[in-house]
Amino acid sequence: MAEYRTLTKRLEFSASHRYWNKHWSKKKNLEIFGKCTSEYGHGHNYILETTIEGSVDPDTGMMINIYELKPVIKSVLKEFDHKFLNEDTDYFEELIPTTENFAKILYECITEKLNSGDCKLKKVRLYETKDLFVDYWK
Amino acid sequence: MAEYRTLTKRLEFSASHRYWNKHWSKKKNLEIFGKCTSEYGHGHNYILETTIEGSVDPDTGMMINIYELKPVIKSVLKEFDHKFLNEDTDYFEELIPTTENFAKILYECITEKLNSGDCKLKKVRLYETKDLFVDYWK
Amino acid sequence: MAEYRTLTKRLEFSASHRYWNKHWSKKKNLEIFGKCTSEYGHGHNYILETTIEGSVDPDTGMMINIYELKPVIKSVLKEFDHKFLNEDTDYFEELIPTTENFAKILYECITEKLNSGDCKLKKVRLYETKDLFVDYWK
Amino acid sequence: MAEYRTLTKRLEFSASHRYWNKHWSKKKNLEIFGKCTSEYGHGHNYILETTIEGSVDPDTGMMINIYELKPVIKSVLKEFDHKFLNEDTDYFEELIPTTENFAKILYECITEKLNSGDCKLKKVRLYETKDLFVDYWK
Amino acid sequence: MAEYRTLTKRLEFSASHRYWNKHWSKKKNLEIFGKCTSEYGHGHNYILETTIEGSVDPDTGMMINIYELKPVIKSVLKEFDHKFLNEDTDYFEELIPTTENFAKILYECITEKLNSGDCKLKKVRLYETKDLFVDYWK
Amino acid sequence: MAEYRTLTKRLEFSASHRYWNKHWSKKKNLEIFGKCTSEYGHGHNYILETTIEGSVDPDTGMMINIYELKPVIKSVLKEFDHKFLNEDTDYFEELIPTTENFAKILYECITEKLNSGDCKLKKVRLYETKDLFVDYWK
Repeated sequence: MAEYRTLTKRLEFSASHRYWNKHWSKKKNLEIFGKCTSEYGHGHNYILETTIEGSVDPDTGMMINIYELKPVIKSVLKEFDHKFLNEDTDYFEELIPTTENFAKILYECITEKLNSGDCKLKKVRLYETKDLFVDYWK
Repeated sequence: MAEYRTLTKRLEFSASHRYWNKHWSKKKNLEIFGKCTSEYGHGHNYILETTIEGSVDPDTGMMINIYELKPVIKSVLKEFDHKFLNEDTDYFEELIPTTENFAKILYECITEKLNSGDCKLKKVRLYETKDLFVDYWK
Repeated sequence: MAEYRTLTKRLEFSASHRYWNKHWSKKKNLEIFGKCTSEYGHGHNYILETTIEGSVDPDTGMMINIYELKPVIKSVLKEFDHKFLNEDTDYFEELIPTTENFAKILYECITEKLNSGDCKLKKVRLYETKDLFVDYWK
Repeated sequence: MAEYRTLTKRLEFSASHRYWNKHWSKKKNLEIFGKCTSEYGHGHNYILETTIEGSVDPDTGMMINIYELKPVIKSVLKEFDHKFLNEDTDYFEELIPTTENFAKILYECITEKLNSGDCKLKKVRLYETKDLFVDYWK
Repeated sequence: MAEYRTLTKRLEFSASHRYWNKHWSKKKNLEIFGKCTSEYGHGHNYILETTIEGSVDPDTGMMINIYELKPVIKSVLKEFDHKFLNEDTDYFEELIPTTENFAKILYECITEKLNSGDCKLKKVRLYETKDLFVDYWK
Repeated sequence: MAEYRTLTKRLEFSASHRYWNKHWSKKKNLEIFGKCTSEYGHGHNYILETTIEGSVDPDTGMMINIYELKPVIKSVLKEFDHKFLNEDTDYFEELIPTTENFAKILYECITEKLNSGDCKLKKVRLYETKDLFVDYWK
C-alpha cells in the first residue's frame, strides 16, 4: 500500500498592507474594503506554513533537512518581512495584497527556490490572523 | 496546471449539551456516555472553522468578502450560541448532540445560507475542546 | 536576598452556567445579563491555573510533587466538571455563577484541601474563555 | 483577611508602525532600529490585555459588566486599529511607537474613559507578537 | 451525495531522541544533524493528532467512543512517553528517530491496536514543536 | 505617580532531563519520581519568559533593544538547548533538574550576563509544558 508523508514548517513574519483598487472611486473602495483602505496601511503578524512532500532518505530519516528548508523559506520571507507590501515589494502593483493573492505569491516564490532531491512544495497555508487563513496548492 | 485555494474563518461560541439516548435505561446511558449524561448538561467553548472554496475575483483579490462571510456564519451560530443544544434548539430531539452530529448540522445550516458568486462551503471543522475535533464535508 | 518561587498547574474542565438574579424581573435580568440568561444555561471549557508558593525540598528539588498536587485539584474540579453550576452544585443558590464568584469558590475549595508541608495556595486564575479571565488571591 | 480580584479582557487589533528618530542620521537609525526602519512601516496583530480591579457587586456577581467594559476598550482601540501609528494617530509625533510607549498610551486612554463604580484600571499588557510583550501600570 | 467525517484526538507526551547514523563518521553526523547529535539526546513535548474515519452509530451519535479511543492511543504512547527513543524503545536501532520516521511508527502501532466496528485510522499528525510537524497516512 | 513597566521576551528551547536522587534506593526514586526516573531521561520543549524592568530611553522609546536582549538570552540558552541537563551541563550534579531548580539556574545565568544601562532582570517564568510552569524572582 502506498504511503504518504508531508512535513510542515511554520514561520512568523510581520508586514503591513492596504486594500485599494485604483480603478475605483474612494467611495467604492470604502464600501468594499472598509477599514482596510486606510492610506498608510495596517499590519499583521503573518504565519506561513510550508508543506513539503517527498520520500524519506534512509540515511538521514528525513524528507528534507530542516537546515536546508529553513533558509529557503527565510530567503523568500526576507522580501516581505517588516515591509509595506503595496510599496516595498514588486508583486502588488496590480494585485490587491489580500491573503488570497499573497498566499499564491508565496507559493510561487518557494517553488522557484526549492531544489532538493525529490522534495517538492505541496501546499502553503497563510494565516493573516489566527482566525483567518488561506490554503493554496496546485 | 489547475490551482486550488480555500479560505477559512474561525469563530468561537459557547453552548452546553447532554448525551442521553431516551430509548436506553439510565444504567446503559451511564455506561456509554459517562459524565456526559449529567441532567442539566455541561458546556464548551466550541470553535468552528468554516472553509470556503471558489475563485478569486480579480477586482477585489478576494474569494469572498469577509464582511459578507462573517455575518452568514454569525447568523447560523446565533441559533446555538449561549444555548443548551438539547432543549433550546430543534435539531437534537432525536439526534444526540455529539460533535459528530453537531458538525453535520452546522455544515448544512451554512450551506443553506451561503449564496455568494461561485463560492461554496468545502468543509467545517468543529472543535469541542482544543484536543478533540470533527471535520465534516461532502 | 530573599528568593521567591511559585509553581503553577493548568487544568481544563467543562461546565455550564446561567446568569439569573431571582430577585429581579425577567426584563431586568435580560437587560443586565443579555444572552447569558438563557434558561438551560450555556457552557464553557474553563481553564484553571492553580499557583502554589513555598520552599523547595532539597531532596526532591520540588515545591510540591505534581503527583500530590494534581489529585488535590482534580478532586476539587470533580464537583464542577461536566456540571450545570446553578443546579448541580451547592455553591450558587444565592451567588450568580460569574467568573468572579466562581474563582473565589475554587480558591476556597483548593485552600481547604491542600495540606502539603509549607506549601500554600497563592492565587487562582480562572479562564472562562481564552479572552476573559479572573485572578483571585488573599 | 483582605481579598483581591482582577478581571482581564483580551482583545486583538492590527496596526503598523515604523521606528525612526528624526533627530538622527539614516545611518544611526539603521544601526539602532534595523529592519524596523523601513519607510512605510510594517505591521502586527497586537493583543491588548486590560486588567481591572474593584469589588464585586453582590446583585450581579460582577466587578464590571463585560457589556460595559468591552465598548470602552473598543472605543480606545478604534483610534489605532487598522492604522499606521506614526501617521494616522496623534500620539507618535515625538514618541517612537515602540511597544513600551504604545502600552503607556493605551493605559492612559483607557483610564480616561473608564468610569464604572469603584472599578479602575490596574494594568495593561500589550503583545506585539506572542513572544514579546510589555506590562504597564501605575 | 456521499458524506465524509473524521474525528481527531490530540494528546501530548514527552520524549527525547538523538540523531546519529552509526555508519557515518562523527564529522559527517555533525555536518548533517548539527546540535541534534548531542550524545545523551535532547527532548520534546510531542503532540500527536490521531484522525479516525468511519460512520456514525445512530444510537450514540459517535464514530467511536472517546472512552474507547483514548485508551488505545494512551497504550501506544506508553511505550514512548518519558523515554529516550534511541535506547528505551526497539524501533530505532536502525532507524533515525526523526519526526518523519516516528510518525510512521506511531501510525503503525495505532493501526494494529484499533479494532472498533468500521472505524479505522486515517492519518496521524506528529508535532515535534508547534512549528514543525509531519503528517503520515496510507 | 510612579509608573512601572516590564518587557518580556519568550524563547523556546529543547532539553531532556532525568529525576534521580543518587542518595536514595531505586525503589524510593520510583515511588517519588515515577516515570521521570527513566535512565536515559526524557525531554521537553521548554519556554522561557525573561522579564526585564527599567526605564525607557527617550531617544529610542525602548527599555532595552531587543537586538541586545535576545543575544544575551540566547547565549544563556546555548548551554542547555538540545542537551541532556543531567550529563551535558555542570549545574545538576547535586541538584535534581526539576523546573523549580532549573528556573533558578536560568535566573542566575541571565542576571550575570545582563549589563544594559539601568535595566535588570525582574523575573523568569519557565514552562516545562504549556500546563506546568515556575516563576522565579528575587
